[in-house]
Amino acid sequence: MAHLSDIEIAQAKELQHITKIASKLSIKEDDLELYGKYKAKLPLHLIDEEKVKENNLVLVTALTPTPAGEGKTTVSIGLTEGLNKIGKQATVVLREPSLGPVFGIKGGAAGGGYSQVVPMEDINLHFTGDFNAVEKANNLLSALIDNNLQSKVNNLNIDPRTILWKRVIDMNDRALRQITIGLGGTANGIPREDGFNITPASEVMAILCMATDFDNLKERLGNIFIGFTFDKKPVFAKDLNAENAMAILLKDAIKPNLVQTLEENPAIIHGGPFANIAQGTNTIIATKMGLSLSDYAVTEAGFGADLGAEKFLNIKSAFAGLNPKCVVLVATIRALRHHGGAQKEEYNTPNVERVAEGFKNLEKHIENIRKYNIEPVVAVNSFISDSDEEVKFVVEACSELGVHAVVSEGWAKGGEGTQDLARAVVDVVENKATEFKPLYDWKSPVKEKIATIAKEIYGADDVIYDKKAMLNLRRIDRLGFNDFAICMAKTQKSFSDDDKLIGRPTGFSVTVREIEIAAGAEFIIPILGKMMRMPGLPGKPASEGMSIDNEGVISGLS
Amino acid sequence: MAHLSDIEIAQAKELQHITKIASKLSIKEDDLELYGKYKAKLPLHLIDEEKVKENNLVLVTALTPTPAGEGKTTVSIGLTEGLNKIGKQATVVLREPSLGPVFGIKGGAAGGGYSQVVPMEDINLHFTGDFNAVEKANNLLSALIDNNLQSKVNNLNIDPRTILWKRVIDMNDRALRQITIGLGGTANGIPREDGFNITPASEVMAILCMATDFDNLKERLGNIFIGFTFDKKPVFAKDLNAENAMAILLKDAIKPNLVQTLEENPAIIHGGPFANIAQGTNTIIATKMGLSLSDYAVTEAGFGADLGAEKFLNIKSAFAGLNPKCVVLVATIRALRHHGGAQKEEYNTPNVERVAEGFKNLEKHIENIRKYNIEPVVAVNSFISDSDEEVKFVVEACSELGVHAVVSEGWAKGGEGTQDLARAVVDVVENKATEFKPLYDWKSPVKEKIATIAKEIYGADDVIYDKKAMLNLRRIDRLGFNDFAICMAKTQKSFSDDDKLIGRPTGFSVTVREIEIAAGAEFIIPILGKMMRMPGLPGKPASEGMSIDNEGVISGLS
Repeated sequence: MAHLSDIEIAQAKELQHITKIASKLSIKEDDLELYGKYKAKLPLHLIDEEKVKENNLVLVTALTPTPAGEGKTTVSIGLTEGLNKIGKQATVVLREPSLGPVFGIKGGAAGGGYSQVVPMEDINLHFTGDFNAVEKANNLLSALIDNNLQSKVNNLNIDPRTILWKRVIDMNDRALRQITIGLGGTANGIPREDGFNITPASEVMAILCMATDFDNLKERLGNIFIGFTFDKKPVFAKDLNAENAMAILLKDAIKPNLVQTLEENPAIIHGGPFANIAQGTNTIIATKMGLSLSDYAVTEAGFGADLGAEKFLNIKSAFAGLNPKCVVLVATIRALRHHGGAQKEEYNTPNVERVAEGFKNLEKHIENIRKYNIEPVVAVNSFISDSDEEVKFVVEACSELGVHAVVSEGWAKGGEGTQDLARAVVDVVENKATEFKPLYDWKSPVKEKIATIAKEIYGADDVIYDKKAMLNLRRIDRLGFNDFAICMAKTQKSFSDDDKLIGRPTGFSVTVREIEIAAGAEFIIPILGKMMRMPGLPGKPASEGMSIDNEGVISGLS
Repeated sequence: MAHLSDIEIAQAKELQHITKIASKLSIKEDDLELYGKYKAKLPLHLIDEEKVKENNLVLVTALTPTPAGEGKTTVSIGLTEGLNKIGKQATVVLREPSLGPVFGIKGGAAGGGYSQVVPMEDINLHFTGDFNAVEKANNLLSALIDNNLQSKVNNLNIDPRTILWKRVIDMNDRALRQITIGLGGTANGIPREDGFNITPASEVMAILCMATDFDNLKERLGNIFIGFTFDKKPVFAKDLNAENAMAILLKDAIKPNLVQTLEENPAIIHGGPFANIAQGTNTIIATKMGLSLSDYAVTEAGFGADLGAEKFLNIKSAFAGLNPKCVVLVATIRALRHHGGAQKEEYNTPNVERVAEGFKNLEKHIENIRKYNIEPVVAVNSFISDSDEEVKFVVEACSELGVHAVVSEGWAKGGEGTQDLARAVVDVVENKATEFKPLYDWKSPVKEKIATIAKEIYGADDVIYDKKAMLNLRRIDRLGFNDFAICMAKTQKSFSDDDKLIGRPTGFSVTVREIEIAAGAEFIIPILGKMMRMPGLPGKPASEGMSIDNEGVISGLS
């Protein structure tokens, strides 16, 4: 089985018409906005706040990941297949992949092996146009800003040197990171420095994912903080009357997308913000939609639990009133070896001592999840190189902590390989779920909120503020943004802000270098290291290995 | 009636499900790729080359236009309604509007009044994502070029100073016209000058509109000419192995879109290249689709007949083997007054002498159309300010030339107001159509082809070549591109290359300043003046007057 590529497995599957998938969720055909035969958008009126409260939200997150990732999406899809196999009605709710990386190294993000969402080509390419809509809304605001700089009508007196708003493009294109625009004389505007980020790094994406409805979307778009006037007054998108036109561009993007898994179970895929400078999880609307339509909604958040789960819980769940009943911590034996000190060339070599040492990382994540009053389940995402002895160690070590650890074989077997995991999750949901408790109150002082995350979740002794960060704090206070959520921008490779501190580091402090503001998303973003917002292409881009025949059949996409 | 805005008229219309419109064309429901309830993509296998030959192609073009345009799209839609009203099965085949101008001054392009295609909001916004796909394919090539400049793998030794390929964005954004990219050190690439054009100016758009199928699309994409290596060898997109990935991004964009008119007749809308540096008409695939599915396909081409019709006939029809049986020349009394010397403030004031003088412009267009062995019909697109006397003059003057001139009231009355026009068109198609004859042979020498257009169509005495153009001619010869079609880039405001020469100028020469190459589209583009490829926003952008409510209902879009 493992000899087939993801796209070959996906293309071999005969898809069900999306109306059939929708009927499993009791959605009337008239409520579907079809995008071809296998994709549909769902109208917002299908959200039922009672059902959102009643039904069961399961978050899939991971231990501190290796660069290849530990397979959260694959486990989320596999778990959903398994839940349906054991008789629970479950929907997986995922992020949309970004187009840029598809042509770079990383490839797409529609799961893998026999745990995929389909049609994978469409999902990995333009899908239903949501990313494009975000990009256009972002770039309309940019065009309005530059237009205002030289406009004689309603000129806001914006100081071009203070403009924080950047253009975006969904492409791995490093040459656009730092540019100068407006060159060529008076007809072409006011010259200034600018740059493009990749589309998932747009605040518009973060906003779309936090919005609860159209009015809330518009309000948030209007609140985007652009920069300052020459006399130091803050300028917002609403000062340019931009929010309605931006919301018009998002009129369809606000609606969640329905597709299917390889086992014909429903998958809702919607929104895809960065996991470093943003919340790294799908839209609130999609999560609520999943809960409105099925007993179990299985969802995921980017990077390890110190980033993805922390933001999912303290930002998204706290704001939207979501109540996750179980957290699945994905671990791989490979990552445990890494955290136990294995070098890259040893990642695939069994070594139970390394795993035992690396387990400390997983243990800290388990402790962290319990701080939210949520009981975790550990999913060991199975690889061929795993030894029985290593797996046995993890299962027993978890058991000693009172945690179910279950091998998940979704990649190789689909739902057939995840039924044990599904049963463990159901056990937690039905027998051990209590009321979720966020770690901090949004209304606490900014430094207190940051300290709580750093100490409770990362295990840091202290938070150090660089001079720039201190100035930023004062600006936040002056602008009245103290009550925003904290969206930490930190390396995903360590609990700390130092990539090299693997395992469960102690005795360290973290340094806040500067603090950004996403006033529309209502985030304060402490920057703990250099954050990549525009990837580049590799020496031999993935695009070179792709082909399409005269019937439109694609190969080489991964 | 005229008190309602276009969007109000469009929103008041209860739309038919697109499957109903499709059934009028005998399209099976299974062949439709729905995009919501009111839009669908059509698979290429519905094209029937026999029907393309048999059925009747009508081209709508215009006299030399005023800046506001003379209403070709409105007349095309109105004529289609009229044809259906008098019992002919007709489909209108149009270009897709660009998003950028929607937020600028111009507004959208889905017809007007009671001759519109709907849903107008969708058509004017992202529609089915075709423009975005073109943009991404264009910009992937850009990213691959800049990546290659600094790549150690397969470095092509491209001289950055020679790169002709620009990025595109579908936004009116003058600050991106001229930029420098790759700044910020080695990690960000090689610094160089660049710029963004608006998406319809992309050669990828021109290629999509010339492609006959996937293989042809790929071949054309691979043939895109990028620039030169340091040792002066030409570099093409295929040297970067870009054509497959670009075609993958266009896998859905290649399929024409079906929507409906206000009177529930079929409308195929597909592709939208610029009318100055490109061909300014919808895709060959869409035109063939229209002819495959209905007795009459009514289509249009940008600007006046000296540009739009000339390119439609000598480039598109000649390449695709199309045989237009009638050309509708749209004239407005307003434009005739203008060509008769009326100033802008006199445009709406009846003046039969001005109209008589301005008629010379229309007469030249009539003569031109006949050079292709096609009989024209003149549609006087009715305005409230037209006087009976002026209209009578035009009808009689046309009659003296043996041409039917018919008042078209599609804007105010829909198909009810265009039946006379429809009957005049049917008369030409059924009784006067002969075999269309292109004006030049693609295999003729470049300068001969250019001279033919300039002398026969524009009425120029001579063609002058600037030094740069002479160098460009030598390059074209060296690269072996002599057999390409000629795609003239000239002002639309005059038969000549001088905006101010209104009416029917004589005794002038035109100057070719430089000659561009679109090797994938197979165009040689003589540039006869400064061509705008990236519009700006006005002092008060149209976006400021737009709004959207919490149910997603839009107002202020035009």
